Amino acid sequence: MTRIKAGIINVTGYIGAELARLLAQHPQAELVIVTGRSAAGQKLGDVFPHFAGTDYVIKTEFDSDVDIAFSAMPHKTSIDVIPALLKQDIRVIDVSADFRLKDASEYPRWYGFTHPSPGLLEDAVYGLPELHRDEIASASLLANPGCYSTGAILALAPAVKEGLIYPEVIVDSKSGVSGAGRTLSLIAHYSEANENTCAYSLEGHRHLPEMEQELGILNPELSPSITFVPHLVPMSRGILSTCYARLKVDKLSKGAKAKEELNLLYHEFYKDAAFVRVTGKLPQTKHAWGSNFCFIYPTIDLRTDRLIVISSLDNLVKGGAGQAVQNMNVMFNLPEATGLEALAIYP
Amino acid sequence: MTRIKAGIINVTGYIGAELARLLAQHPQAELVIVTGRSAAGQKLGDVFPHFAGTDYVIKTEFDSDVDIAFSAMPHKTSIDVIPALLKQDIRVIDVSADFRLKDASEYPRWYGFTHPSPGLLEDAVYGLPELHRDEIASASLLANPGCYSTGAILALAPAVKEGLIYPEVIVDSKSGVSGAGRTLSLIAHYSEANENTCAYSLEGHRHLPEMEQELGILNPELSPSITFVPHLVPMSRGILSTCYARLKVDKLSKGAKAKEELNLLYHEFYKDAAFVRVTGKLPQTKHAWGSNFCFIYPTIDLRTDRLIVISSLDNLVKGGAGQAVQNMNVMFNLPEATGLEALAIYP
Amino acid sequence: MTRIKAGIINVTGYIGAELARLLAQHPQAELVIVTGRSAAGQKLGDVFPHFAGTDYVIKTEFDSDVDIAFSAMPHKTSIDVIPALLKQDIRVIDVSADFRLKDASEYPRWYGFTHPSPGLLEDAVYGLPELHRDEIASASLLANPGCYSTGAILALAPAVKEGLIYPEVIVDSKSGVSGAGRTLSLIAHYSEANENTCAYSLEGHRHLPEMEQELGILNPELSPSITFVPHLVPMSRGILSTCYARLKVDKLSKGAKAKEELNLLYHEFYKDAAFVRVTGKLPQTKHAWGSNFCFIYPTIDLRTDRLIVISSLDNLVKGGAGQAVQNMNVMFNLPEATGLEALAIYP
Amino acid sequence: MTRIKAGIINVTGYIGAELARLLAQHPQAELVIVTGRSAAGQKLGDVFPHFAGTDYVIKTEFDSDVDIAFSAMPHKTSIDVIPALLKQDIRVIDVSADFRLKDASEYPRWYGFTHPSPGLLEDAVYGLPELHRDEIASASLLANPGCYSTGAILALAPAVKEGLIYPEVIVDSKSGVSGAGRTLSLIAHYSEANENTCAYSLEGHRHLPEMEQELGILNPELSPSITFVPHLVPMSRGILSTCYARLKVDKLSKGAKAKEELNLLYHEFYKDAAFVRVTGKLPQTKHAWGSNFCFIYPTIDLRTDRLIVISSLDNLVKGGAGQAVQNMNVMFNLPEATGLEALAIYP
Repeated sequence: MTRIKAGIINVTGYIGAELARLLAQHPQAELVIVTGRSAAGQKLGDVFPHFAGTDYVIKTEFDSDVDIAFSAMPHKTSIDVIPALLKQDIRVIDVSADFRLKDASEYPRWYGFTHPSPGLLEDAVYGLPELHRDEIASASLLANPGCYSTGAILALAPAVKEGLIYPEVIVDSKSGVSGAGRTLSLIAHYSEANENTCAYSLEGHRHLPEMEQELGILNPELSPSITFVPHLVPMSRGILSTCYARLKVDKLSKGAKAKEELNLLYHEFYKDAAFVRVTGKLPQTKHAWGSNFCFIYPTIDLRTDRLIVISSLDNLVKGGAGQAVQNMNVMFNLPEATGLEALAIYP
Repeated sequence: MTRIKAGIINVTGYIGAELARLLAQHPQAELVIVTGRSAAGQKLGDVFPHFAGTDYVIKTEFDSDVDIAFSAMPHKTSIDVIPALLKQDIRVIDVSADFRLKDASEYPRWYGFTHPSPGLLEDAVYGLPELHRDEIASASLLANPGCYSTGAILALAPAVKEGLIYPEVIVDSKSGVSGAGRTLSLIAHYSEANENTCAYSLEGHRHLPEMEQELGILNPELSPSITFVPHLVPMSRGILSTCYARLKVDKLSKGAKAKEELNLLYHEFYKDAAFVRVTGKLPQTKHAWGSNFCFIYPTIDLRTDRLIVISSLDNLVKGGAGQAVQNMNVMFNLPEATGLEALAIYP
Repeated sequence: MTRIKAGIINVTGYIGAELARLLAQHPQAELVIVTGRSAAGQKLGDVFPHFAGTDYVIKTEFDSDVDIAFSAMPHKTSIDVIPALLKQDIRVIDVSADFRLKDASEYPRWYGFTHPSPGLLEDAVYGLPELHRDEIASASLLANPGCYSTGAILALAPAVKEGLIYPEVIVDSKSGVSGAGRTLSLIAHYSEANENTCAYSLEGHRHLPEMEQELGILNPELSPSITFVPHLVPMSRGILSTCYARLKVDKLSKGAKAKEELNLLYHEFYKDAAFVRVTGKLPQTKHAWGSNFCFIYPTIDLRTDRLIVISSLDNLVKGGAGQAVQNMNVMFNLPEATGLEALAIYP
Repeated sequence: MTRIKAGIINVTGYIGAELARLLAQHPQAELVIVTGRSAAGQKLGDVFPHFAGTDYVIKTEFDSDVDIAFSAMPHKTSIDVIPALLKQDIRVIDVSADFRLKDASEYPRWYGFTHPSPGLLEDAVYGLPELHRDEIASASLLANPGCYSTGAILALAPAVKEGLIYPEVIVDSKSGVSGAGRTLSLIAHYSEANENTCAYSLEGHRHLPEMEQELGILNPELSPSITFVPHLVPMSRGILSTCYARLKVDKLSKGAKAKEELNLLYHEFYKDAAFVRVTGKLPQTKHAWGSNFCFIYPTIDLRTDRLIVISSLDNLVKGGAGQAVQNMNVMFNLPEATGLEALAIYP
């Protein structure tokens, strides 16, 4: 079998570097080109010493013939390079947000620009394999989900689908600092981020419309209205999302039995998901560190009849590069876990 | 003026050591005795090197004549030593939970034991100076609040008092690991806690009934029903609490104006509070590191008409030893900030 | 080809768990048994959630037929279980120190016990493949090196072998806290280890005699006399060792040219080493995080004619479990890097 | 008594902010002006939230009448503003390196510029009160020592003064990341610095000539030749310096007795030092966190007859702003510890 020829546009950010790590070790893919403006001409191993011993050189132009291109360009920039790739019949996985929202009118509101290719928004497939596996298989343009969106949607999807809850939903997420990217900023400066926890983006974080879009599609009658508050905590990797909603009282039994039914329902929903583990123990971000797994723990606050679901994942893997590779596997008809079997690294 | 003679029972935990630090530097108090079983006979500076150069020796028996005793014994143990102190006319500040709940029937449910001195529960004053300054001034037995309770109650008190919200409240708190104490445990083992965030006590954390009790007293008609999920994040100190509730739509104006009114209302509520800072910026735990301040940021998610209030404090200071000293100041008619003026240490 | 049947004795420590991770993913080995007293009967995935989804169950007795046994028992205990395995013709890799020292008289001095099987010390091979590949290939009993020893010996071996330095050597190492193990201790308690750096074992750390033994074998005339000071720094994984020695002035050219010659000499020494990277950049512990690589940077302080060599590795991989698997590969005639190709995880 | 009127030039870095914290709380000083270009016009409490509640406003021009000016300008810039202050009879404490070296010819070599005011180098006093208290008392221009220099000089001074060692000295220091300043840089970017330890400045760090200068003055015959390697470890504050040198064998007794004599000699040397604690326990950086103390532990590696001295301090306090305030106290004839009595914050 010939290997998939893959390329990465803008390898020099954290998601780009993580894509390179996963593709360099993928048994069915070959990483044939990586580009990046700031480090063009350098060996990848000189920019990222964990690649010492590999031969990749960072190019300026994405000029190789590939089967699939991963665009790790920033928002609003990705949009400019993708149409040309599609025209060359290169399938594209975009890890930016440029094709995640179906409704073009959401872009001015959440991203501050008018979308130049609204037609492509319809073609683009939202790349959450647990919800859209079939469409992903045949996608030309895949929009890889946001890190927070992945954790929140996976946590809530079974409850929303089954109509267990009222639409008022709270998502409180705690993220490691690598989510803020490799670009220097005061909030990600070590002495500021260390020994510190803070909330941010209270005016509305950009991953929120993805959550409402995807959960709304799952159950249009319920159509959740989400308050989402992301937080930065002093660790490099990981997102823990704690989701809260009021339970509809007639959907489950009372008391401990309700928890069992809930757990079963979640297990059933994810029974074919290679990377979701519904767990009977409280998940920690460490459980997923460096791996593509998402751990999900659904429970009920019996005092108040509220659903609580906690999910944990590695923001750069299942919340980014790993999910992109998982999508590639689906698109090229490989077993979904190919190249992604690595267990989390502990401790 | 003669200095207040103070003693600490069980100085060897983190709250005990922090009490010692604050009292050793207090201009109007004299720390005359510290006890602790595990380290009895040792110099305090040998157990805690930041006390090197001081002369305190850890005693077995609390046998000094003091004006005030701080009990830093564990829950259920404090209860055994306090009555004898009260009989000697020693005023007592208990940093355990043994006298925090007014209703004795709550102890079996939350703490797993029947309270042996329910009569004292009535006499005990809940030591949150921002709510109970007058009763504290004349208290013989003061129950120092829990660290999470302090952050949550201060965040919600103005909104509850004014009846701005519906009773369904979510409190999502993120705490540094010192909150788990100095006793060894796997969850507080460095390699487990580092690079890790997790939730715990989903079956009901013991600080929850304090929150409902105190907010219920503030506004019995509203009487909040709280879902509280505490989390551990990898830092030594600090608690950030993010609180969510649905707004009653007729209580404030619409839009940005509502945020202003809310902010004003919070400023008004805390105008005499020496250690609460209502802030127009998102508070970080680092803002309060090592100090007795609590930062509070109230806002509104205008998309969903929900109140969000974030508070930050140092769990060992305003959430523990600092608040205890603040209470002592009130009890002995000193300016509330005496010995507690230190600014946070940054970065 | 049939896979190597492997077993782990005492899987519940950090080295044991890391061995399980590497063997579970090894393409030529099959992990057929794991034992551990404290967690006997439990699923490995219940003790270590990163194994969720695997079927390993922790046994009490090591009763399977295996080709190789990894003993992750503590020092002085390993010695008791290994002879019986050897009698069953099971090859053994011992990650404890029980067979690292050739001279039985060193055990009372450094480990406080008289070695019960001095005869086995002669048979045992010190498992540093970069120095002893041939003997490892035919070893029945392999003593896996200490984590600090690996970093220091690899840093100094070329200089010692070539006689570049005087025997007075300083090794100053900085280790992540996982090196202190999974057993609870105050020094590894999160709030104590966080925001803290300290030295320990100044009376003589047990990895020191390994360093002197192995470097002495390499060049008996030089026979280094080492002062070794280990330090704990607040991170989970990684060891950085900074080694200092006075250069013999006639061995290299003067000035910048000497640095080049030194670099070449190191490259030459390690030209066949799969996991040693002699680098022209200062190595960081992060460069090796989660991987089996050791990065080595030799240089000269030209002001004072002193050699400085810095090495970095992951204490649980090249400094422990990874090296053990590398040794297994050599013992079973597999390509040395089999199952160990994973790149470091960054950031 | 009138308070000392003090001002800070360039308050917006970490040392500047720490100076502001200490001066704002100093009982005998009044902070009358703070300047800073990047944040001019803002309230100090808006830039640094731990100053919320204070009234300081950041000015552009240093136009107040003060008794003492603290210059926290970067190297090579401080030199430009100081002469004008001196001409106005304002005493100056410079926390940059611009006046630390006595020999003007060292500036081109270590700092890359020709010193424009070599005459002032003679007048400037090196501000280590433990060595130069008398000259400091009458100084007009004080050069506050480097953070690493303080730890290394204090660790080695007694041994050098007494001629206990040979001149070949190794100083291996481990610093928290705040030492890299508040200016953004990749090495201080959270995801790079976290879970990472690395050496830097192997070509010669700028604090090295201060160490050789000061130790050489103490004992010109010995005149140490130092190899200094600084390291970054993932914590915000603290420096641990491990210093190594060969002992002259005839200066102390043999064996354990030598350690006692060494300890006594260090105690004697520092018997009048308010902020140096010679300790019988291994010092940790945490012991000094947030305080002006320096802990020093001298010992001997009896196997190799080498002196090892470990010192720990807070790089922003005794290694920076605290030492500057200590110098101010000496210059204005106040008790040396005024405003600096705060104990370390633990944990």
